[in-house]
Amino acid sequence: MFGIWGHPQASRLTYYALHSLQHRGQEGTGIVVTDGQNMQGRKGEGLVTDIFTVQSMAELKGTAAIGHVRYTIGGCDAGYENVQPLLFRSSTGSLALCHSGNLLNGPELRRQLEEQGSIFQTSSDAEVVAHLIRRSRLPALKEQVKSALALLQGAYAFLLLTEQELIAALDPQGLRPLSLGRLGEAWVIAAESCAFDIIGARFARDVQPGELIIISNQGICSENLSNAPSRNLCAMEYVYFARPDSNLAGINVHTARKELGRQLARECPVEADVVTGVPDSSLSAAIGYAEELRIPYEMGLVKSRYVGRTFIEPSPSLREQGVKLKLSAVRGVVEGKRVALVDDSFVRGTTGRRITRLLKEAGAKEVHLLISSPPIKYPCFYGIDTLSSRELLAANHSIAEITELIGADSLHFLSEEGMRRVLGGGLCMACFTGNYPTSLPKL
Amino acid sequence: MFGIWGHPQASRLTYYALHSLQHRGQEGTGIVVTDGQNMQGRKGEGLVTDIFTVQSMAELKGTAAIGHVRYTIGGCDAGYENVQPLLFRSSTGSLALCHSGNLLNGPELRRQLEEQGSIFQTSSDAEVVAHLIRRSRLPALKEQVKSALALLQGAYAFLLLTEQELIAALDPQGLRPLSLGRLGEAWVIAAESCAFDIIGARFARDVQPGELIIISNQGICSENLSNAPSRNLCAMEYVYFARPDSNLAGINVHTARKELGRQLARECPVEADVVTGVPDSSLSAAIGYAEELRIPYEMGLVKSRYVGRTFIEPSPSLREQGVKLKLSAVRGVVEGKRVALVDDSFVRGTTGRRITRLLKEAGAKEVHLLISSPPIKYPCFYGIDTLSSRELLAANHSIAEITELIGADSLHFLSEEGMRRVLGGGLCMACFTGNYPTSLPKL
Amino acid sequence: MFGIWGHPQASRLTYYALHSLQHRGQEGTGIVVTDGQNMQGRKGEGLVTDIFTVQSMAELKGTAAIGHVRYTIGGCDAGYENVQPLLFRSSTGSLALCHSGNLLNGPELRRQLEEQGSIFQTSSDAEVVAHLIRRSRLPALKEQVKSALALLQGAYAFLLLTEQELIAALDPQGLRPLSLGRLGEAWVIAAESCAFDIIGARFARDVQPGELIIISNQGICSENLSNAPSRNLCAMEYVYFARPDSNLAGINVHTARKELGRQLARECPVEADVVTGVPDSSLSAAIGYAEELRIPYEMGLVKSRYVGRTFIEPSPSLREQGVKLKLSAVRGVVEGKRVALVDDSFVRGTTGRRITRLLKEAGAKEVHLLISSPPIKYPCFYGIDTLSSRELLAANHSIAEITELIGADSLHFLSEEGMRRVLGGGLCMACFTGNYPTSLPKL
Amino acid sequence: MFGIWGHPQASRLTYYALHSLQHRGQEGTGIVVTDGQNMQGRKGEGLVTDIFTVQSMAELKGTAAIGHVRYTIGGCDAGYENVQPLLFRSSTGSLALCHSGNLLNGPELRRQLEEQGSIFQTSSDAEVVAHLIRRSRLPALKEQVKSALALLQGAYAFLLLTEQELIAALDPQGLRPLSLGRLGEAWVIAAESCAFDIIGARFARDVQPGELIIISNQGICSENLSNAPSRNLCAMEYVYFARPDSNLAGINVHTARKELGRQLARECPVEADVVTGVPDSSLSAAIGYAEELRIPYEMGLVKSRYVGRTFIEPSPSLREQGVKLKLSAVRGVVEGKRVALVDDSFVRGTTGRRITRLLKEAGAKEVHLLISSPPIKYPCFYGIDTLSSRELLAANHSIAEITELIGADSLHFLSEEGMRRVLGGGLCMACFTGNYPTSLPKL
Repeated sequence: MFGIWGHPQASRLTYYALHSLQHRGQEGTGIVVTDGQNMQGRKGEGLVTDIFTVQSMAELKGTAAIGHVRYTIGGCDAGYENVQPLLFRSSTGSLALCHSGNLLNGPELRRQLEEQGSIFQTSSDAEVVAHLIRRSRLPALKEQVKSALALLQGAYAFLLLTEQELIAALDPQGLRPLSLGRLGEAWVIAAESCAFDIIGARFARDVQPGELIIISNQGICSENLSNAPSRNLCAMEYVYFARPDSNLAGINVHTARKELGRQLARECPVEADVVTGVPDSSLSAAIGYAEELRIPYEMGLVKSRYVGRTFIEPSPSLREQGVKLKLSAVRGVVEGKRVALVDDSFVRGTTGRRITRLLKEAGAKEVHLLISSPPIKYPCFYGIDTLSSRELLAANHSIAEITELIGADSLHFLSEEGMRRVLGGGLCMACFTGNYPTSLPKL
Repeated sequence: MFGIWGHPQASRLTYYALHSLQHRGQEGTGIVVTDGQNMQGRKGEGLVTDIFTVQSMAELKGTAAIGHVRYTIGGCDAGYENVQPLLFRSSTGSLALCHSGNLLNGPELRRQLEEQGSIFQTSSDAEVVAHLIRRSRLPALKEQVKSALALLQGAYAFLLLTEQELIAALDPQGLRPLSLGRLGEAWVIAAESCAFDIIGARFARDVQPGELIIISNQGICSENLSNAPSRNLCAMEYVYFARPDSNLAGINVHTARKELGRQLARECPVEADVVTGVPDSSLSAAIGYAEELRIPYEMGLVKSRYVGRTFIEPSPSLREQGVKLKLSAVRGVVEGKRVALVDDSFVRGTTGRRITRLLKEAGAKEVHLLISSPPIKYPCFYGIDTLSSRELLAANHSIAEITELIGADSLHFLSEEGMRRVLGGGLCMACFTGNYPTSLPKL
Repeated sequence: MFGIWGHPQASRLTYYALHSLQHRGQEGTGIVVTDGQNMQGRKGEGLVTDIFTVQSMAELKGTAAIGHVRYTIGGCDAGYENVQPLLFRSSTGSLALCHSGNLLNGPELRRQLEEQGSIFQTSSDAEVVAHLIRRSRLPALKEQVKSALALLQGAYAFLLLTEQELIAALDPQGLRPLSLGRLGEAWVIAAESCAFDIIGARFARDVQPGELIIISNQGICSENLSNAPSRNLCAMEYVYFARPDSNLAGINVHTARKELGRQLARECPVEADVVTGVPDSSLSAAIGYAEELRIPYEMGLVKSRYVGRTFIEPSPSLREQGVKLKLSAVRGVVEGKRVALVDDSFVRGTTGRRITRLLKEAGAKEVHLLISSPPIKYPCFYGIDTLSSRELLAANHSIAEITELIGADSLHFLSEEGMRRVLGGGLCMACFTGNYPTSLPKL
Repeated sequence: MFGIWGHPQASRLTYYALHSLQHRGQEGTGIVVTDGQNMQGRKGEGLVTDIFTVQSMAELKGTAAIGHVRYTIGGCDAGYENVQPLLFRSSTGSLALCHSGNLLNGPELRRQLEEQGSIFQTSSDAEVVAHLIRRSRLPALKEQVKSALALLQGAYAFLLLTEQELIAALDPQGLRPLSLGRLGEAWVIAAESCAFDIIGARFARDVQPGELIIISNQGICSENLSNAPSRNLCAMEYVYFARPDSNLAGINVHTARKELGRQLARECPVEADVVTGVPDSSLSAAIGYAEELRIPYEMGLVKSRYVGRTFIEPSPSLREQGVKLKLSAVRGVVEGKRVALVDDSFVRGTTGRRITRLLKEAGAKEVHLLISSPPIKYPCFYGIDTLSSRELLAANHSIAEITELIGADSLHFLSEEGMRRVLGGGLCMACFTGNYPTSLPKL
């Protein structure tokens, strides 16, 4: 999610920014741009590099834009229609909006709107919010947006664009990251600070929980959506979601991960000949673990650079024979060694089991699996695609059971306390602890 | 380059093997398969995942296959025609062949053949060799191939496929890597051992310099092409060309790189707060450098996972403003730090200058550039796309001059002696030393 | 526009039917299908053969479907969003709808809905109607639809699909063609009867002006939307829009065109050696003209079979040199001849001028341009893309002036009376006469 | 097949010319262009509009070019490799060539060349000829070409391009059409004169049987390949292969077809209410038949304008139900009528049977099938894809048997004598008569 106001190459810069945010969603992407008079957009299902062409970018002329990369949860909300930004046109002007997160009362608001005659072409929460805005009787857009957001429960970060304004909003619990920056005279807003670096913009400050920011040619202003905002930034952003070069709440993500690895080493030192991490998101933690214990850090697993592209899947019989494309164990590194394998998180245990087997097949003498976060035991209601409790292995099994299931020689998790020590307060750790920062939806 | 004989899913396994060898060439790829009666192929310009579809693979039925990924040197030899394997049909049977390397007397052989009435549809050395084979008056294919290879000068590894035989050949100086493996009853041959791992095959042994291997339903046999073979494996394979999970001449590539880093640390220790490497091929050396000196190893540079895809290039004005897509410096890691930046090799110096500037813009206090190989001063005639001497920065400038040009605080190279200590003998280090293992072409 | 209810291969048959209706619109196409429980659709910008693949058709499972081919007027309403059927989902069920025609009070209804808080994602009249239906407080869908349609002014034919019903509606003036047919036990509805022939269905009857047809598993029923319906079928459907194998109001289109040509021959016989028509829609009239006057009918113009595909346009300089791709004059037919050139209609005169020149350049001695319809002098408000009065050549110039502008030796039009004699009453001939069958929008 | 010499936009004009010749082959297309120094080409499998893009055309810079559209016989010779022009490069210059027709001794020449050490990458006769040219010891290209062509038996038209010359050759029996034209100062050569019309060139003359034309910057010259040339132009070019706007041997193709229809009417008048033709190639004959007998000519069959594109084929069960996409009978025209159905030729009878059934299902009272050429009873060895004798229905059945098989009420053929009366002498009518103008290959 990225927005820019006041730059002659608004759509191009949005394209580069979305490229750097691609890891946050691969299902679809869109850009809407305005020149102050008109508004136009382009979107599609696929990666930034697939959807936007030189020609389509040339057509997106304007000085302000918002863009989005789509992350779908559990495969629902698929389809072109659901790719954001959504663009609504009316005789009085256009409105584009995109969001990340998940509204807890989205289905209920939708039902209420339907009863009032609203019709829906998408299954997106963004369309719900657009209806709420347009149905407000208040005179100014800012007031309409505030009255709409007041009805929302859950986690959200919103960007809205009209011909006159760029509006950003963050939920009062501050679950999602959102940052403000400057590029010369232009304002930029991004889900992660890496988007600023890639376009040469400077980080200004994080958007605050419950803050509404309105940017126009008259300048920037800020309002509070809530009397009692509090920061509850999603811990999984540090653990695996964000890019290592981003800073979240002032902390660099790579550094945070490495410190989680160091803390894990202090809590759970194992006797090993080599330390290796699961590429790519666990490498920082593995380095930290290795450094703390002075065990050599090695590349025990290699990920194909060309994975991510569509390839022809091996048939079951070939898979049985050992064909594996995405991740290879490096025999020359692990053969005959006791391996400390660091992974960033633990959900269903399938990755852990698969990689432990890979390493053993490549000759590892022992495999000790070290997770640089606590076990995930509770579902996320705020927009991260972990799973229902039933599928969360740690919710239903003891560590001894899991170690056996996985085939590792030992299994260790970072403690909740250890995570807090590294990352500080102001975090949502509900998936580890079950302490949710909001009331939950009635099921 | 990959070949397989005696497996019912020959083309599928070749596809997966080529996928793992994709880093050796991205310009084009092809597979030719035979069922013992017929021979058919498919090829195209692009990546393995672009060229082969489920449907095209289903059509490539057979029990033996060879495949190739194309690496072009200096942009010549482009075009569909030049994608290998080349397939020649005649009334007595078909012949497919592919090669890697570069023939020193290729142009001369081509001229001689033209004078004898040969016509050429490609600019590939493989077509020259096919002509030489077919023009031989000897009765058996093995003899024809031997007589043809006897005329070649330079570096080559060849795979030939007919309805009856799979033939592999390595030049007498052993410049290119080539390994033999087994997958159940089937024989496999690959440029790098990582291709064996990905399909679940076992490494058997390296093909020897000047060895000709003939595999058929009657078994495998081996012949010598030369009385005086010697191993001169290209050192750049270790430095940056091969995949870190491959073993070359019995040495794991990641481990070799890490040891080059350690050796560099012993030779050129610098005072630094963090060590970082240029992704991806320099990371192993950086880890070794850091471990040896007990300086923290950090992710000071991040490479976009989505690079490699076609994206819209920034205009010069946007580039000027700081838009950069492929590599980002991690401000949170390098700001205010003395950075030891490890790169694997040094050719024109453009990467070094660009990254040094990136790091300084991100706040690095000092940048010390450490190259885990000696300076490249001499052109390669054997198929690696380094450059003519004129473009090789180290061929024409002192280290002090280069340091200034690059803007680094210091610049250090691994010594030739240090490289030999790590990698042992049996190497071609001509690009560092100017000592070529063969006579050179007359210019 | 095509709908089907009660056939296990509903989407496939809709695909074939749309293929036969492709001439009615090339900008986009979509199909929505239901199995009684769920509803799903696929659409896109392009031709039927471009948008639907074997895979996408396999996913569109169900026993009822509606489909659409998109005809855009003046280039507005472009974009994926505007491709129909539009699909709206709600907690009580889905609603898909598509239409052809043009609502005179569409913009006004849209403004009223916006004032009530409706938001719009398309610029399509179909979205307006969907809002009107959903905002109705009446209990049954049939009543909701009737109350919505009661608000509409202009020309329309609608198809609506829910999980329970297929609804078809035609405006009370009966401007657009719409027919009902049977395919075994299934019901089918199509804009033109050629869609029945292609899928092996039988024509049952034309939908009547102001008729609402509701088809469900309980059978078919019909209601009147108006007390005073009257048939005013668009004359241009006969002249050039419909396919020659369709029947409209019981008259075959090819036969109608040929009779228009015969009538033209009676009214305006010219002395000519050959008669030729402008491919494809004028050939029937040319045949009729030739037969009536016993002048040989010849292929004096050839249209490339491969036109319609995207080709590289000739540069102005090449066009100047005579490069022309779509239509060629046949020198061997027209050289030295007096040519009676029959065209079906006359709008801006550009085609007439271009073809007259083509024929003269190919050696025609005389070119007499004969138009098998009266001159178009008035704009269409009902969905046919003729033009504003300013661009209609016949609205502003005498026949003598036009003849001179075009460079023909003479120019003749069918009379209004002659057209009525051939086609009978019950026609909208407003573009010729200015007598519109409805009140017009306030401008 | 098209060539141009001496025009700054050589490749663009070739593109347009090939577009007009697309009906002669749809399997593949290529263009090779030269600027006098270099030679480059582009080719691919598909239509002209699919293979060439704005970008690829911009790269094909030069003042001379040859181009080809590929017609494959019986599905053999498929694949990218076989798409022409073939381009051969050597140290002394490049050679591109393309041909149409079929060499009777192609396989034998290929075997001889293989024995001399030639290797083949295609199954094309053009590659055989290239080998023959390059193996000639004669000094000048013209002499090399002549010595190569002297070895050929069968039908051919060749275009050769080097950096210095454009060479055209026609076989001594003159089986294939080939014409010479002028476009300003440039020379053009085309398989059909319609290619001249589309680019604004003027027809100069037909290339003569056994003529070799050499065009260079020094001008044009002509030589004889044979002492006893004779014109035996393929009669099927008039019957269905050529475009109606082309002239062959001075006769317009549409006019020839119409006269064949008139002659058929004189020979075989039937009692019918309407005459209709099978679109597109039989329409001219149908018009002639109708005019001669003063029976109304009607559009009894309609061909979809969008056929030619790839569509999803109906399943057998849908086909059974009557789904038909390519051709529709026009019920409104044929219902209750006695139909004289004119087709241009008769090979396997499948089209005749299918259309007769279509017309009867649409209500035709009688269907009389009239073929405007004699029955095809003998295979073609010269490059037209009729079939082996076994599949030629008329070779093995009496007319009474065929009439019954087809389900028509009567069946009539034009006589050989009638065809000669219309088209004159100088024709190859071997497929009707069995009198081949050359000796035949030994089988």
